Amino acid sequence: MTEPTGSTLTDALAEARRKYRNWGRWGPDDALGTLNYIDDGKRSAAVAVARAGRVFSLALEFNRDGPRSGSRGRGNPIHTMLDSGLEAAAGAQGLPHGFGDADDVVFMPLRAGTHWDGLGHVYDKGFAWNGRRCEDVVTGAGDQVTGVERQAASFVTRGVLLDVGRAVGDGELPDGFVITEHHLRTTIAAQGPSSAIDRGDIVLVRTGQLARCRRLAGWGGYTTGAAPGLSFGVLGWLHGSEIAAVATDTFTVEVRPHEFDPPCVLPLHQIAIPNIGLFLGEMFDTDALAADCAADGVYEFLLVAAGLPITGGVGAPVNPIAIK
Amino acid sequence: MTEPTGSTLTDALAEARRKYRNWGRWGPDDALGTLNYIDDGKRSAAVAVARAGRVFSLALEFNRDGPRSGSRGRGNPIHTMLDSGLEAAAGAQGLPHGFGDADDVVFMPLRAGTHWDGLGHVYDKGFAWNGRRCEDVVTGAGDQVTGVERQAASFVTRGVLLDVGRAVGDGELPDGFVITEHHLRTTIAAQGPSSAIDRGDIVLVRTGQLARCRRLAGWGGYTTGAAPGLSFGVLGWLHGSEIAAVATDTFTVEVRPHEFDPPCVLPLHQIAIPNIGLFLGEMFDTDALAADCAADGVYEFLLVAAGLPITGGVGAPVNPIAIK
Amino acid sequence: MTEPTGSTLTDALAEARRKYRNWGRWGPDDALGTLNYIDDGKRSAAVAVARAGRVFSLALEFNRDGPRSGSRGRGNPIHTMLDSGLEAAAGAQGLPHGFGDADDVVFMPLRAGTHWDGLGHVYDKGFAWNGRRCEDVVTGAGDQVTGVERQAASFVTRGVLLDVGRAVGDGELPDGFVITEHHLRTTIAAQGPSSAIDRGDIVLVRTGQLARCRRLAGWGGYTTGAAPGLSFGVLGWLHGSEIAAVATDTFTVEVRPHEFDPPCVLPLHQIAIPNIGLFLGEMFDTDALAADCAADGVYEFLLVAAGLPITGGVGAPVNPIAIK
Amino acid sequence: MTEPTGSTLTDALAEARRKYRNWGRWGPDDALGTLNYIDDGKRSAAVAVARAGRVFSLALEFNRDGPRSGSRGRGNPIHTMLDSGLEAAAGAQGLPHGFGDADDVVFMPLRAGTHWDGLGHVYDKGFAWNGRRCEDVVTGAGDQVTGVERQAASFVTRGVLLDVGRAVGDGELPDGFVITEHHLRTTIAAQGPSSAIDRGDIVLVRTGQLARCRRLAGWGGYTTGAAPGLSFGVLGWLHGSEIAAVATDTFTVEVRPHEFDPPCVLPLHQIAIPNIGLFLGEMFDTDALAADCAADGVYEFLLVAAGLPITGGVGAPVNPIAIK
Repeated sequence: MTEPTGSTLTDALAEARRKYRNWGRWGPDDALGTLNYIDDGKRSAAVAVARAGRVFSLALEFNRDGPRSGSRGRGNPIHTMLDSGLEAAAGAQGLPHGFGDADDVVFMPLRAGTHWDGLGHVYDKGFAWNGRRCEDVVTGAGDQVTGVERQAASFVTRGVLLDVGRAVGDGELPDGFVITEHHLRTTIAAQGPSSAIDRGDIVLVRTGQLARCRRLAGWGGYTTGAAPGLSFGVLGWLHGSEIAAVATDTFTVEVRPHEFDPPCVLPLHQIAIPNIGLFLGEMFDTDALAADCAADGVYEFLLVAAGLPITGGVGAPVNPIAIK
Repeated sequence: MTEPTGSTLTDALAEARRKYRNWGRWGPDDALGTLNYIDDGKRSAAVAVARAGRVFSLALEFNRDGPRSGSRGRGNPIHTMLDSGLEAAAGAQGLPHGFGDADDVVFMPLRAGTHWDGLGHVYDKGFAWNGRRCEDVVTGAGDQVTGVERQAASFVTRGVLLDVGRAVGDGELPDGFVITEHHLRTTIAAQGPSSAIDRGDIVLVRTGQLARCRRLAGWGGYTTGAAPGLSFGVLGWLHGSEIAAVATDTFTVEVRPHEFDPPCVLPLHQIAIPNIGLFLGEMFDTDALAADCAADGVYEFLLVAAGLPITGGVGAPVNPIAIK
Repeated sequence: MTEPTGSTLTDALAEARRKYRNWGRWGPDDALGTLNYIDDGKRSAAVAVARAGRVFSLALEFNRDGPRSGSRGRGNPIHTMLDSGLEAAAGAQGLPHGFGDADDVVFMPLRAGTHWDGLGHVYDKGFAWNGRRCEDVVTGAGDQVTGVERQAASFVTRGVLLDVGRAVGDGELPDGFVITEHHLRTTIAAQGPSSAIDRGDIVLVRTGQLARCRRLAGWGGYTTGAAPGLSFGVLGWLHGSEIAAVATDTFTVEVRPHEFDPPCVLPLHQIAIPNIGLFLGEMFDTDALAADCAADGVYEFLLVAAGLPITGGVGAPVNPIAIK
Repeated sequence: MTEPTGSTLTDALAEARRKYRNWGRWGPDDALGTLNYIDDGKRSAAVAVARAGRVFSLALEFNRDGPRSGSRGRGNPIHTMLDSGLEAAAGAQGLPHGFGDADDVVFMPLRAGTHWDGLGHVYDKGFAWNGRRCEDVVTGAGDQVTGVERQAASFVTRGVLLDVGRAVGDGELPDGFVITEHHLRTTIAAQGPSSAIDRGDIVLVRTGQLARCRRLAGWGGYTTGAAPGLSFGVLGWLHGSEIAAVATDTFTVEVRPHEFDPPCVLPLHQIAIPNIGLFLGEMFDTDALAADCAADGVYEFLLVAAGLPITGGVGAPVNPIAIK
C-alpha cells in the first residue's frame, strides 16, 4: 500500500515529492512527461488490440449547459452564430447562384469540457514539470515550454477502462468515495486479464458520478462539490505503474473533499503534474464504453485522445476516441 | 471524365444536382451523410492498416498568428490566460501548501484552424443536407439537426494520402492549379497500390500550398487569394467513389479562383455538402505524413479525425491523427 | 393608484397593454421609444442643473467577479491580456528603442454589468417595440431596427434619484420588497422639490440591495434570487410621467419574486419595453451619488449615460455619469 | 517651436524625457495622470459651456466591420446573439404568457473601436506611468495600479475641437501629413476665441482621415498604413498646455509613418503615456461635431467621455458625448 504515512498534508507532500519526482528522467528539455512511455512499439501493440471496429467518443458535448460554474472566469463554452440558415433563407447574405452558408464562433475555457490538463497547469512550490520555475514556463503568452501543442501527436496508445463504479459499487460510487489502490486492484482482478495495466497505457477510471448526473438530469455539485475520486495514496501506483495518463468521469480525478484537513487544493494534482509529469484527463464520458466492456468482458482498446493543439495552452479540449 | 458539360455555372450546378444528390439515401433523419459509408467492418480493416505505430498530427497549431484574415468576423483563435505562472510565482493566487495553477481561455471561429465543415455549413438554393430547409436546420442556436456533435465518433476509418503536389508537380502546385480527376488518377497510379481508394475512405489531397506558406514564412493569400484545389469536375469522382470525406492542405478544398465566371462562391462546396452530404476537411497539415509516405511508399493509414463536439456547430476544429 | 385590477397575470397584462401601449406615437420608423421625450430644450435645462461640478460614475466595475451566474450563457465579463508588462519587461516583444506595450480583450454578455436593456431585448406575444414582429427586428445578426447604436447620443438628460431605500426603509429595502407608486410618491415628498419628476427625466431608483451585497461582501442571489423592485402596478406611473428611462441598483428593475403566480417571467419588462418603449437600466450603482444627495438635499443632476454603441446590440454596457 | 533638436530618435526621446516627465507630480500613488488637471471648478465651468442642448456621440459603431486588421490578436468586435427574435418567434424559448427575449455577447479587444489608451498601455524603457516598473503594474491579471476602472468618473471636462483638417487643409489632411504646433496654433487662431485651450481641457484634433474613409467607403490603411497625425514635436505643447487628454479621428493620434528613421514604434506614445501621464483617445468620430462647430463658430463644449470601467483594462472602449 502506498497510503501517505505522514500525518499531515505537508508531510505527505514532502514524502510524495521524494518518492515520485521524475524530474530529469527524460532530459532537461522534455515536454512530454509520462507520454514518453509511449513509443512506436507501444502504439503498434495498441492498434492490434482493436479488432471489432466499434468506436466510442468519450467527450461530453461542449455547450453552454455544461458543468462549469463560472467562478474565477471558468464558465462553459459559449457557442454563437456569425450567420445561420435563417439569414441564408431570408436572402440577407447577398450571395450568388443559390449559395448560402453559416458560420460560428466559440468562447471557452480550455478546461470547460472534456480535457487534458497540460503540464503547465499546476505547480508545486513554484516549480512546474521537470523542475522549471513556473514563471519561466507559463507567462501571459501561455505555456512557452510544455504547451499542449507539443503533445499534439502523443495521446495514442492502449487504453484500459477500470470501471470501479461497477466493480466496487453498484455502478455509481457515492460522492466523496475515496478510491484507493486496493480498489483499483480489486477492479482489475474482477474485470479479468484484458484490464491488466502495462507501461504506457492510458487508464480510464469510471466512478459513475457522471452517470449519476445524467440520471438526475442535472450537474449538481459536479464541478463544485463532493465527488468520488482517487486517493492521494494512489500516487505511488500511478507513478510505479508507468502509465502515460489517467482520466476519470469526474471534474478533478482526485476525490473531493480531499483527505487532508482544509485548506487544501488538489494535492494529487500537485504531485502528479509538476512532479511525476503525469497527464490527468477530466470529464471523460466513459459510460457507453463501460457498457460495451461489461457486455463483452474486454476492457482494453486503442485510445486516440489527441487534444486541440492550442499554442501555449495549459489545457487541451479533447474528443477522445476509443476503438475496440 | 466528369468535367461539367454545361457552359455556365447555372447549368453545371443543375447537372451536378441531378447526378450526385444523395438526399434520402440514408433515411429522412440522417445526420451523418457520407460518413455512413464507414461501418464496424470498415473500421476493423482500417485499424489493420496501421502496423508500425508511427503517428502524425495533421493539425495546424491554433493561435493568433494563424491564416485567417478576420473579415466577416472570421479571425484566428485568440488564446489568453486567466492566470499564469507569473501570478503563481508572485504569490498572487493565495493558494495554500505551495499549490499554484494556470488557466486559459480561447475565442475562435470554428473554422479558424484545421477543421471539418459541418453538414450545416453550406446550402444550395435554401436547402441543407438531405433536402431540409436551411432555416429549419441552422438557427441562431446552431445546427439543430446535423450539428458536429452528431459525428463525434464518426471520423475513424482508413485514410489515403494523394500527394498530387509530388506526383504531378515538384512538391508544390502553383496557386490556381486546377486538380482534375485525371490528376487524382495519375497520382494514385504513381503512388502504387496502397493508395487505391475504397468505399468509406477519407482522402487527403496534398497540394503543397501549405508547404509553400511554410517555406515563405507567411500566409500570403492562403485564405483570401488564389490556391490550388479540386476542380468542380471532380465532384463526379467524389460522389462515385463513395468516400467518407475529403480534406486538403488548403483553405477551401476547391480551386481558387473558381473555374466559372464571377461572381462565384465555392461551387464545389455547394454540391458536395448539401447535395452529396460529403464532409470537407480544410487546412490539414499533411507535410510530415507525406514525407513519411514518400519514404516508405505506403500511402494508407488509420485516420482518427474526431472533431470537437461543440453542440450545434457547423464546423468542427480537429486534431486529425494518422497512424501508420 | 395603478395596481392591476385584473385578478390574474393574463388580465393584468391585457389591461396594461390597453392603457400604456405607445405604438406609433413617434412614427412607424421609431428607434428611440421614450428617449423621444428628450429634446434640445430638455438637455439645455438638464445641463443647467449641474452647478458644483461634482461627478459620479454609476457603473459597477466590469470583471469576472461580477454578479452574473453564468446560466444560459450569461456570465460575467472575462478580461484577459494579449500582452502585459511582464512580456515587455522580459524583452519578449522585440520592439525597438525602449518601447513596450500591453493590450487586452474582453468577452462579455452585453447585460453582464451596468447596462441599458435595448428595445430589442424583450417581446410581448411576439411583438417588439412599436408593434413590429420580433423576428423582423432581432435576427442572428442582431437588432436590425432598434439596435443600441441608434441611441448612441440619446441618454443625456436630467436625472433624478429616488432613494426609496432611505426614504421608506433604513437604507436597504429587504429582498422581495414591492415598491409601489405610493412609495415613489412618498420618497419624492420626503426628498423635496429637487426630486419632482418631469417629462424626459431619467429616474434612478435606489433600493439599497447593491449596498447590502457590498456590505455582505458577496453577490448572494443578486441576479438569481429575490430582490426589492418595482411593482407591476408602477407601470401606470412610468407611462404617465413620460420619463425617458428608469434604472435601479438591482438586476431586473422589477421586484422578484414577481407579484403573480408562477410561472412568470419579468411581467413589468413585458409591458415596459415592447409596449411603452421604455428603457430600463440595471445594476446602476447609485450609492455614492445617494450619499451626496442625502448630504446636500439635492436629488437632481445632469445624467450622461451613453451606452457602448455595439451595432445591433439588444443591450448596452454603460458607464453612467451623474454631474451635480 | 518645440521640434526635437536631437538628430536621432534616441536623442529626441532623451530630450523629451528630460523636459516633459511628470513623474511624482501628483504623488506616488497617482492613477489619473493629466486627468488631475480636472477638478470640480473645471467641471463646473465646463458644464456652463453647454447651452443649446445639442448632443453628439463621437463613437464609431462597434462591429465586425470595423477598422482593425486582426494582426497580433487585435481584431474587430465580434457581436453574436445568444437568443434572438427568431427563436422567440419560433416558440423555441419555452417562456410563459407571451414573454420572449433576446440576449447577446461581444468579444473585443479593448482598443478595437473608439477608446482611451490606459496609462498601462505603453512603457518607456520598462517604465510605466509615474516611474513604476511595467512588470509591477500590468500583469496577466491586467493593470493592477492604473487600470481604466480608476478613471471611471474622470473624463468630464471642457472639450475643444481643433479642426486642423478644415483650418489647414480642405477638410481632409493627406495621409502622412505631419501636424506641428504651428498648425495647431493656426487652427486655434482661425477658429476664434472659443477654441482657446485651457488647463484641464480635452483637445480633439480632427484630421479628416476618418471622413476620407467614410467618403471612400472603406478602411483602407486606416489602422495599418500612413495617416495624418501629431508630430513628435507637439509633445512640448501637449505637456505645457496642461491639457487633460488629446484625441483624434485617427488610429494612433501621432503621424504615420513616423518622423524618425525606422524601425520606430509610436514615439509620441512612448513619451506621452508613461512620461507625461497623458491620455490619448483614438478613433473619435468628430465629423458631425465639426460640421456643427463650423456652422456656429463655437468649438468648445461639455465633453463626457467616460470609458467602460473594465477592471485592470489598459484600454477603455468609450462612447464620448459632446454637449453644446
